[in-house]
Amino acid sequence: MQTGRPVAQTGVNVVRAAHGEFRVTDLERARTFYVDLLGFVETERTSDALYLRGLEERGHHSLVLRQGDSPSAGHLGFRVESEDDLDRLGHFCVGQGLEHRWLQPGGEPGQGRALRLQDPYGLPLEFFAAMQPAERMLQRFDLHRGAQIMRFDHFNCQLPDVGSAYEWYATQLGFGCSEYTAGRDDDLWAVWLQRKGNVHDLALMTGAGPRVHHLGFWVADTLSVLRACDVLAGAGWVGSIERGPGRHGISNAFFLYLRDPDGNRIELYANDYQVVDPDWEPIRWELDDPRRATFWGHAAPASWFDDAALCESVMTGELLPVVLPRGTDRPAHVT
Amino acid sequence: MQTGRPVAQTGVNVVRAAHGEFRVTDLERARTFYVDLLGFVETERTSDALYLRGLEERGHHSLVLRQGDSPSAGHLGFRVESEDDLDRLGHFCVGQGLEHRWLQPGGEPGQGRALRLQDPYGLPLEFFAAMQPAERMLQRFDLHRGAQIMRFDHFNCQLPDVGSAYEWYATQLGFGCSEYTAGRDDDLWAVWLQRKGNVHDLALMTGAGPRVHHLGFWVADTLSVLRACDVLAGAGWVGSIERGPGRHGISNAFFLYLRDPDGNRIELYANDYQVVDPDWEPIRWELDDPRRATFWGHAAPASWFDDAALCESVMTGELLPVVLPRGTDRPAHVT
Amino acid sequence: MQTGRPVAQTGVNVVRAAHGEFRVTDLERARTFYVDLLGFVETERTSDALYLRGLEERGHHSLVLRQGDSPSAGHLGFRVESEDDLDRLGHFCVGQGLEHRWLQPGGEPGQGRALRLQDPYGLPLEFFAAMQPAERMLQRFDLHRGAQIMRFDHFNCQLPDVGSAYEWYATQLGFGCSEYTAGRDDDLWAVWLQRKGNVHDLALMTGAGPRVHHLGFWVADTLSVLRACDVLAGAGWVGSIERGPGRHGISNAFFLYLRDPDGNRIELYANDYQVVDPDWEPIRWELDDPRRATFWGHAAPASWFDDAALCESVMTGELLPVVLPRGTDRPAHVT
Amino acid sequence: MQTGRPVAQTGVNVVRAAHGEFRVTDLERARTFYVDLLGFVETERTSDALYLRGLEERGHHSLVLRQGDSPSAGHLGFRVESEDDLDRLGHFCVGQGLEHRWLQPGGEPGQGRALRLQDPYGLPLEFFAAMQPAERMLQRFDLHRGAQIMRFDHFNCQLPDVGSAYEWYATQLGFGCSEYTAGRDDDLWAVWLQRKGNVHDLALMTGAGPRVHHLGFWVADTLSVLRACDVLAGAGWVGSIERGPGRHGISNAFFLYLRDPDGNRIELYANDYQVVDPDWEPIRWELDDPRRATFWGHAAPASWFDDAALCESVMTGELLPVVLPRGTDRPAHVT
Repeated sequence: MQTGRPVAQTGVNVVRAAHGEFRVTDLERARTFYVDLLGFVETERTSDALYLRGLEERGHHSLVLRQGDSPSAGHLGFRVESEDDLDRLGHFCVGQGLEHRWLQPGGEPGQGRALRLQDPYGLPLEFFAAMQPAERMLQRFDLHRGAQIMRFDHFNCQLPDVGSAYEWYATQLGFGCSEYTAGRDDDLWAVWLQRKGNVHDLALMTGAGPRVHHLGFWVADTLSVLRACDVLAGAGWVGSIERGPGRHGISNAFFLYLRDPDGNRIELYANDYQVVDPDWEPIRWELDDPRRATFWGHAAPASWFDDAALCESVMTGELLPVVLPRGTDRPAHVT
Repeated sequence: MQTGRPVAQTGVNVVRAAHGEFRVTDLERARTFYVDLLGFVETERTSDALYLRGLEERGHHSLVLRQGDSPSAGHLGFRVESEDDLDRLGHFCVGQGLEHRWLQPGGEPGQGRALRLQDPYGLPLEFFAAMQPAERMLQRFDLHRGAQIMRFDHFNCQLPDVGSAYEWYATQLGFGCSEYTAGRDDDLWAVWLQRKGNVHDLALMTGAGPRVHHLGFWVADTLSVLRACDVLAGAGWVGSIERGPGRHGISNAFFLYLRDPDGNRIELYANDYQVVDPDWEPIRWELDDPRRATFWGHAAPASWFDDAALCESVMTGELLPVVLPRGTDRPAHVT
Repeated sequence: MQTGRPVAQTGVNVVRAAHGEFRVTDLERARTFYVDLLGFVETERTSDALYLRGLEERGHHSLVLRQGDSPSAGHLGFRVESEDDLDRLGHFCVGQGLEHRWLQPGGEPGQGRALRLQDPYGLPLEFFAAMQPAERMLQRFDLHRGAQIMRFDHFNCQLPDVGSAYEWYATQLGFGCSEYTAGRDDDLWAVWLQRKGNVHDLALMTGAGPRVHHLGFWVADTLSVLRACDVLAGAGWVGSIERGPGRHGISNAFFLYLRDPDGNRIELYANDYQVVDPDWEPIRWELDDPRRATFWGHAAPASWFDDAALCESVMTGELLPVVLPRGTDRPAHVT
Repeated sequence: MQTGRPVAQTGVNVVRAAHGEFRVTDLERARTFYVDLLGFVETERTSDALYLRGLEERGHHSLVLRQGDSPSAGHLGFRVESEDDLDRLGHFCVGQGLEHRWLQPGGEPGQGRALRLQDPYGLPLEFFAAMQPAERMLQRFDLHRGAQIMRFDHFNCQLPDVGSAYEWYATQLGFGCSEYTAGRDDDLWAVWLQRKGNVHDLALMTGAGPRVHHLGFWVADTLSVLRACDVLAGAGWVGSIERGPGRHGISNAFFLYLRDPDGNRIELYANDYQVVDPDWEPIRWELDDPRRATFWGHAAPASWFDDAALCESVMTGELLPVVLPRGTDRPAHVT
C-alpha cells in the first residue's frame, strides 16, 4: 500500500465524507430511533424525508432518512473544497463515461449544487461544496440526549473486488490508506481510506456488493457508547443492538453497531487517532487475527457479514444487483 | 475516635439518612433546577411542596422542596428499622426532655408514622420506618436526564461544638466514625458518621450553627458529575456551580457543590468506599492538609464556609439562632 | 421470596463475603495475571500461596491463590461480627452434624481464628472475625494498575437445588434476597443474597454442583472494566476475556468475566445499587427474559454455563463430586 | 476574521504543530514528572536531553527536555509536507530578512533537515519534513501509565500584539482561525489557529511576550484528565496542578494545566471538535464572558496569566526580552 495521501489525478479536492442517506419504510418509527433515542437533531422534515444532524455539526444535515418501500442506501455524500472541484469532477465523469447527474442548489434541501455519480463499482456517490448553516448544539449540553451523536464520520461499503476499487479511490480521488486487511492469499481484503485526517472517510470490505454496510457516526467518548446501549435497552429497543460495544483492533476505535427499525446499520464510533502526516505507513492486519476486528477477541455475529443495504442507481433510483466475491467475505472467527 | 460502629444506648436501629427538605421561595424555579436540569424524578406535587426522588430509589421521596418566605433547611429524615424503634426513640425524647412531636401516617405525604425531634445541638431530625413505594427508574435509562441523580446519600451540618455532638450521635444513636479532621489544637474539627456502610450518613463540621451545610446525593460515576456541570452551563445556570468538580481527600469521593436558585446547597457525590467491618479504624486528617478537602490541592471558596441553611424548629417552624464556634471555621487554604 | 433481611436463627451475624481462594497450577503465571495485569496488590507470598488484596482494602487478603495439581475452588471466606459469632456457629455445626474444623489464628496467614465448614449443599465456607491490617492503597493512585481492583464483592455458586439452599442461607444465616430468577416451572432458578447492603454477597444459580462459578471483585467504574479488556488484549492475554463487558439486567451492574490461566473465573463488577432498607422487595426476573443476564440482549457463551470450579472438602481437601440439576442449567438464549 | 483556511502566500504547506522543547534544570526530576507520572514514552536520552513521545505517536519525539540553567522554551516544531516546503520557507526568510539557520539531518536527534527561524514577533519556530519512526504504543495498553498522553496537539503563546501576528500566520503560512476572543475595545485579544483540522495548532493570546504559555497534549478522554490529577496528588505532586480540570468555552475541550518541576506549563487536552470545512466561520467570544475560558464559570488563577516561558533566540540561544501589551492581559474574572 502507498504511504501518505496520494495526489488525486482528477484534481478534485475531497474534504471529507459528509452525509449518508437511508430509505426507511416508516418515517415516524425511524424518527423515534434516531432522534428520540440516539439524540440526532432534526433540522428539517419534508413530506417524505427527515434531515438530521449531530450535536457538533454546523450544516443542514449529515443523515437523510427518506420514505421508501424497502430499506436501502441512497447516496454517499462527500464534501469538496470548492465549486471548481465539482466542475472538474463533472468533466471526469464525461471523460470516463460514468453515469452522473447534476442537482441544482436546493435540489437536496439545505445543500448547494451537487453532482451524483455511480462509481465504477456501483456505489452511489454525491459531491457538493456548500451547505446551509444550522445551529451548532455542541455546548447546549442541556439538550443532548441518548448517544449524544457528534458528527458524521465515515462510510463502510462491501464490494466483491476491493483491490480495484482501492486503486480508483486512491488514484482518482486522492484517498490515503490508514490501515488494511490482507486476505488469506495476500490479496487486499479490506481497506480504510481517508481524506479528513483520521482513520477513515471510506472503508471498503470484501463482500457481496455493491452494498453499504454502515454509516459511521462520531461520539465523544466510550461512555456515550455505553449510554446508547442502556438507553436502547431501557426503552425496549434491545433488538437494535447488533454488535459491541467493543474496541476495534483496526482503527483502535471504540464501537457499537446498531440496526435501525428497517435493518439499516449505523456505527457509533469514538477514539480513533490522527492520520495527517504525509509519510503515514498503512498498518497491515491479517484477516484471521482474532484481535483485528474486535481487539478483545470477540467474534462478530454472522449477520454483520450477511446483511447490508442495497445501493440505488443515481439515475433511476432502482436497486442495483449484487455480485458475490470470489474469495471469502468473512474471517474464520464468526459466531 | 472509636473503631467500628458503636451500640446505640437508646436501642434505636437507624438504617440510613433518607431524605432532606429545603424551603424555597419559588417552586417552579426550583423544579427547573432539580427536575429539568439535574434529573430528579417528581413523585408528587402538592399546593406548597414538591416530593422528588432519585433514579435508583423505590420510595416516595428523598428530597422535599417546600414553598417558604426564605430559604432554609427543614427536617433531616432518617429511616429506622421498625416501628418499635420509633417508640424507643419517643421514650428517649421524653426522658431527655428533647423537643419532639409525632406525625401520623401521611402527615408527611408518602410516609408512615414519624417522629420529629430537635437534637441537643439544634438539628431538626425526623425518624420514620415506612415509606410508600414508587416506581424505580434505575433501568429506564431512556428517561435519565442531567446529572442522573441516583439516591440520597448524606447530610452535612455545621455546629459550633462538633465534639459534643459526635459523642451524642455515637453513643445514643450508634453512629460509627469513618474519618475525622483534627483542628489545630488537636480538637475534633469535623467528623464523618455512618450507619449504612459507606463513608457517611451525617457529617458534622465546625462552624456557625446549627446550620445544614448541604444535602449529598449519590451519582453513578465521575462522568455524571462532569455532565452536571456541562448541562448547567449549557442551560445558562453557570452561577449554580460553587465548587468542584474534584476529588475529596476525605472520603475519596468525586464531588461537586451546587447552589439551588435560593442558595440552598447540594453535593453530587460518587465513588466513596465500603465501611462495614466492625474493626474499622477512623482515618485522621489535619485541618490544614492541602489534600484533605480537595485531594488535588484546590482551595475551597470562602462562600463554601460562610453560607449554609438555617434550621427550623421542629415545634414552631421558626428559624433557630446561630452560635459561632470558639475555634476556626475553616482551613488556612481558602480562596 | 421474603422481603428485607431475615433474622438468622443461628444468631450469627455475618458482615460480608470477604475473600475467596483458587487453586492454580503455576503461581508465577497466576501472579502475572492477577497482579501485573489486573492490578491486585500482593500482601504476602509463601512457598505455595499468594495473598492478594484490592486497592481499597485494609485487610491482609481478599484473594488467595494456592499452588495445586489442578484448578479448583478453596474456601469461601465470610467475615462475622465477633468471636462470639464464631462460637455460635461452631455449636450450630455440632448440633446439625455439619463437617467442620477450626483454624487457629494465623492458621490462614494474616487471619484470626476461623471456622471452616461444608454447607449442606457442599460449598466450602470459612468464617472469621479478625484480619491483620494492611496498607490501604486507595489514594496511592500513582501505584494503581490495570483494572484497578477495589475490593472483593461476592461469590457466585452453582448448585443442583437452589431452592433448598436459599432457605438455608436465609433462615440460618440471615441472608436477604435482592433479586431472583424464576425458572420455566416457576421454581427458583437463581437467587442473589446479601448481608452487606448491596446486591449480593452470595449468588446461587441452578447448575451442576456444588461448584464455584466465579469470585466477583468490585471496580470503581465502567471505565475500569473497559481498561481491563484493553490491558489484557494489549498484553496478548485476549483469551482471558470470556464474556462482556456489558450491563447485567439483574443487579444493573456493569460486568466482565475473565478466566485466569487455569480457567478459574472472576468477575469485575461495578455500579450496582444499595439494598439496606428492611422492606426491600426482591426483584423477579424470568429465566428467558433476554435482558435478564445481559441487559443489552447479548447471549452468554455456553462455556459460561458449562465451566465452573470444583469445590474442596474442608476436611480432606479432596474435590467433591458434582450432581446435575433436574431442571435446565441455562436460559434459551446462549451462543 | 476570515472563514476557512487561507492560502499561504509563501506556498509552504504546514501539516501540523509537531513538537515543543523546554529547558529544565534537572533532567532526572523532569523525567519523573513526564515519564513516570504522566506516562510519556522515552525514545532517546542524550547527555543533556530527553526525547519523549505520546502513546499514539509514530515519530521520534513530540517533547524535548533539554538541560539548562533556567527554565525556558526552546523551539516550536512544525511539520511541513515536503522538503520543497522547507526550501520555499528558506527563500522566504532570506527575502524577509528573518533570522534563521538550517539544521542538518540528525542535527536534532531523530529528525531530518530542519529550518529554525524567529518569527517577526519573536517566537522560535522550527520546520521539518521527516522524522525517524518509533514504535507506536497505542495498543500496548498494558504499558500505558498516568495521564496516558496520546500526542502533541498545540502551542499557546503570549504576544503583546496578537492582531499583527494573526495576520502574518494567516497570510504567510495559511493558518485558519477556528475561534477568537474580542477584547474590550473590539480588538483581537486572542486567536486559535489551525492547520491539521481540529481547533488549533497555535493559539496566540495578548500578554507580555514573546513567551510560550504552554504546550498542549492530547489525551483520549475526560477520564485521562481526572486520572492525571489523582496520580499526581497520590504521588505527592499536588503542587503541579495549576488549573482545572474543567471544560473550556473556547474549543469545548476538557482541560488541565500542569506545571513541571521547573514551572514550565503543559495542558492536557481532550474532546475538541473537527474543523476541516473550507467555509468554517470563526466563533467569537467576548473577553469577559464568564463561560469563555472555563465554561463552568470558574475563574483562572492569576499565575495562569502571569507566568509563561521566555523564548530563546534561534541564533544564539539567549532569552529574548519581553514587551508588555498596551491593553489588558487578562479577563476581569481571575482569582
